Amino acid sequence: MKYSSEAVERAIHELCKLPGIGRKSAQRHVFYLLKSPDEEVNNLANALMELKTKVRYCSICFNITEHDPCPICKSERRNKSIICVVEEANDIIAFENTGEYKGLYHVLGGVLSPLDGVGPDDLRIKELLARLGENIDEVILATNPNTEGEATAIYLAKLIKPLNIKLSRIARGIPVGADLEYADELTLARALEGRMDF
Amino acid sequence: MKYSSEAVERAIHELCKLPGIGRKSAQRHVFYLLKSPDEEVNNLANALMELKTKVRYCSICFNITEHDPCPICKSERRNKSIICVVEEANDIIAFENTGEYKGLYHVLGGVLSPLDGVGPDDLRIKELLARLGENIDEVILATNPNTEGEATAIYLAKLIKPLNIKLSRIARGIPVGADLEYADELTLARALEGRMDF
Repeated sequence: MKYSSEAVERAIHELCKLPGIGRKSAQRHVFYLLKSPDEEVNNLANALMELKTKVRYCSICFNITEHDPCPICKSERRNKSIICVVEEANDIIAFENTGEYKGLYHVLGGVLSPLDGVGPDDLRIKELLARLGENIDEVILATNPNTEGEATAIYLAKLIKPLNIKLSRIARGIPVGADLEYADELTLARALEGRMDF
Repeated sequence: MKYSSEAVERAIHELCKLPGIGRKSAQRHVFYLLKSPDEEVNNLANALMELKTKVRYCSICFNITEHDPCPICKSERRNKSIICVVEEANDIIAFENTGEYKGLYHVLGGVLSPLDGVGPDDLRIKELLARLGENIDEVILATNPNTEGEATAIYLAKLIKPLNIKLSRIARGIPVGADLEYADELTLARALEGRMDF
């Protein structure tokens, strides 16, 4: 299954490295690009290269940004006494879209995962602890509600509890619009556990 | 749902233009690239740009190639008296993978589709007819077995029949490994119509 053109093979090979893109999708993309005007292909290639030259990490919260510190850390309208700890920068977008959170963030850059060789030193935990000075009232642990995310939250809780800062974990329960019948036992158990006064 | 970085937004916007890539996938790709080494991103961007600088169309069969004419048209080991007419250059790969076909190809560059404004002049039909000289014994019509593909095959047949060249259409029938029970009526009807002596 080889094309006679090395350039086509190379483009397919490079596109295949992207997450969730297999050889068939890569082929479709390459044929689409071959039919597109030069300008469009150059725009795509330049946009990808600019990712590396223009985008950096905020030195405070490690959000992705073009200007350091990032607009959230720099904003005067955010509540600087709350930090929401997330795994990746794209989790910030999810929270920002709710419009419900006005505090700051801290991006860990992953989760503890001993099987993948990711330990506490590979995450930005030291940097988080350094931020927890006198002005911080609450830390919200918003790692994903899966095994690694929970383990990371528990690890962080052990480090932060002694500092006498209010610590919370985002609620796990039935998603809005979902059906109780199809909820798994663990989610239902968490939903019961986290029930609130009505 | 906007990122604070314009470069990230631009990369997502450009990636979304690829077929079958939505905003969510584009975001995943961008975050993957942000975490990848510079070299990998540059390799991808360069590979995409090379598509436009290095890859051209064979002046005989319109296959994609880096050298004109393409390796198939140039090869001394191909049967130059048969032409297999396909819609797109990637269809050639599918036939080459069978290892069963040793003739030449002709890429139409699409199919007749009046609704999309694609008429006979938008396909490489003139170029196909110009190739049908004395040395061609057979033309195989291998457009896709869907409405547009069939219509294009019928259109081509009308043009080629008067030239007194053997004309054939690839067989439509039950795919190997499939189940009769789940075959649609039209496919089953074609399978009956095209039955062969046993």
